[in-house]
Amino acid sequence: MALWLTYPQKGTPTGEVIPFDAVQAALAEALTRTGADGLTYGPVEGLGSLRHALAAHMRRRGAPVTADEIMVLSGATQGLALVAQALVEPGDEVVVEAPTYVGIVQTFGAAGARLIGVPVDAEGLRVDALAHVLARRRVRLIVVQPTVHNPTGATLSQARRERLVALARRHGVPILEDTPYAELWADGPEPPPLLALDRDGLVLHLGSFSKTIAPGLRVGWLAGPAPVIARLALAKQFSDLNTGALPQLVVERLLVSGVYDCHLTHVRAIYEERRAALCAELRGAASVLEVSPDPGGGFYLWLRLRRGRGRLLAAEARKVGVALLPGEAFYPASTIGGEDGGDRIRLSVAGVTPAAIAEGMRRLLPFLDTMADPSPGGRDEGLRPII
Amino acid sequence: MALWLTYPQKGTPTGEVIPFDAVQAALAEALTRTGADGLTYGPVEGLGSLRHALAAHMRRRGAPVTADEIMVLSGATQGLALVAQALVEPGDEVVVEAPTYVGIVQTFGAAGARLIGVPVDAEGLRVDALAHVLARRRVRLIVVQPTVHNPTGATLSQARRERLVALARRHGVPILEDTPYAELWADGPEPPPLLALDRDGLVLHLGSFSKTIAPGLRVGWLAGPAPVIARLALAKQFSDLNTGALPQLVVERLLVSGVYDCHLTHVRAIYEERRAALCAELRGAASVLEVSPDPGGGFYLWLRLRRGRGRLLAAEARKVGVALLPGEAFYPASTIGGEDGGDRIRLSVAGVTPAAIAEGMRRLLPFLDTMADPSPGGRDEGLRPII
Repeated sequence: MALWLTYPQKGTPTGEVIPFDAVQAALAEALTRTGADGLTYGPVEGLGSLRHALAAHMRRRGAPVTADEIMVLSGATQGLALVAQALVEPGDEVVVEAPTYVGIVQTFGAAGARLIGVPVDAEGLRVDALAHVLARRRVRLIVVQPTVHNPTGATLSQARRERLVALARRHGVPILEDTPYAELWADGPEPPPLLALDRDGLVLHLGSFSKTIAPGLRVGWLAGPAPVIARLALAKQFSDLNTGALPQLVVERLLVSGVYDCHLTHVRAIYEERRAALCAELRGAASVLEVSPDPGGGFYLWLRLRRGRGRLLAAEARKVGVALLPGEAFYPASTIGGEDGGDRIRLSVAGVTPAAIAEGMRRLLPFLDTMADPSPGGRDEGLRPII
Repeated sequence: MALWLTYPQKGTPTGEVIPFDAVQAALAEALTRTGADGLTYGPVEGLGSLRHALAAHMRRRGAPVTADEIMVLSGATQGLALVAQALVEPGDEVVVEAPTYVGIVQTFGAAGARLIGVPVDAEGLRVDALAHVLARRRVRLIVVQPTVHNPTGATLSQARRERLVALARRHGVPILEDTPYAELWADGPEPPPLLALDRDGLVLHLGSFSKTIAPGLRVGWLAGPAPVIARLALAKQFSDLNTGALPQLVVERLLVSGVYDCHLTHVRAIYEERRAALCAELRGAASVLEVSPDPGGGFYLWLRLRRGRGRLLAAEARKVGVALLPGEAFYPASTIGGEDGGDRIRLSVAGVTPAAIAEGMRRLLPFLDTMADPSPGGRDEGLRPII
């Protein structure tokens, strides 16, 4: 029985938070409007009505973009792939955060980029460390999750945002800002995206509806300078011609009707309650875990073990149906400062109610206690201690 | 007013042949069954139920595959991209048909392959010419449309199919068989796919629902050896994680319910009627056009101009709202025998009723007549003659 998600654990919204009735209603309404003509080939950049709705959505969040600066994606994963394919040559140096989303490391690594990991602290990317890198290396691209970073949950302060965009301008290096969790920011108004600060056409904004509506729709978007969008659209044409009509129609209806914004309010509260439940449970483990404060948004808590290795804990936890990811999964091979996340774990509240969180922690805490005890003693249930 | 599709003309089923009510009903039925859980992330290879349905579909067509030899795609275009990405290195030699689908030339060209064009005649790929190539060159992959080839409409004879698969075996060269139009074969039972002849794990079969159900669904599939499917699934994971749930659920329902097979019977008859209408109209132009016989399936007629160039005719035709593609668009840069398609055109019946075909030909024939006349005379409507 898996209380938390089966391994490998993903940031996966599950059925109970997916606005299923709204999706069904949006589909029915949209198809009635389009008829069969809605199911032919569409423009590679996405349906015009959805691009307009996404541009309006970005403007409400502070970035003054127009529809021709928007491209619809078959999920944000496609955006990473297209940027890697169209903008990065083998051997190019690409700055990523350390830690960062595994898919970023894998996609840009597979494109042949040499990844430079720049550390992240409680305020997000260490822009001072980035400045040193940019002064000495010829960097092709900076990939950053500025708001509700995966896995740390950190959100870049306004001062760092401004310095980051200024650094990009000074060195002429484009920024890809990846924001799958940004709209799950619950701690006051969402900070404006980096795109809102860009005056030089250097920021590409990558958004996703996988965490906010439903992963199975496979809809994301890119916002950025029209010439870059055009170039990426050419790459998309040879990737999948265009994103499917059905999910595009759903998202357009949800955005334009305001249902999307209402749903965000709803799910932000759900995840906030879950994060609070997990934080409360973790207080009992303060002797073995250094707990960061609630990041104020998203699914994840990023914890440091005072003893032991995340990888071993993950393996033991899995045996009792608790899924967690070891910190080392989130690091590129080469990181400024050398941190490798071996003493870290990521816990997710994406697929679990507060009751499941309580039960999961009831199972996990004995292992954590064992880790605090330097003498390897037997535990009940026939499970080996993990240090 | 565009009577035929606006330029560039595509093989695009339009609203009146899309089974809209069946798609709506399939969606409603599937979503009622899955509930919200149907909208979470899915397996990268596709929904298990759809893979099973596709394996059964392939078995009915003669290829004994199982569900683990199937991968669902976000349109067949994605299959071309994944194969190019996972199996072809820059500099590899890849055999394509000459002529062939533009997307094949572009996708494998963009992957850095050196394309060798092997001629196609009324029986399909010239396997004798291929044998010469394979004897002298180290070919990485053969890409072929064996049934209802684009643009010629040719279908590979059984003898050539057997020889082609034997050649692949002898030289150890994999074959990608691309079959977007194969199920629109109307002239007797559909010839079994090359995959049905393969005993050596060398054939990858690429299928599409874009021409048979609706392009806007963006669903295709690959069938082939499980280890190759696993390798391509890894590439798909970094391309779009998985194909969207909504279109997968639709296709699964249509296949399992038998609605898909009924619809095929319906659309085969529609396109057969249209091809017959176009062939009848073309009889009046026999002095200027060498008309091939009805290919027995699909959307296209592939015609040779007795005088003039396809590119010039296409430009003139466009001015009177008739879309056609010049033959040269379908050739790779290097072709055995040197044919370049300059005297060819492709006409499509995909988006036009017999009435629109008649009106389109009424507009086109004056240009064709002009081409037959060596003295450039003025035409009405202020249009220049095209030779």
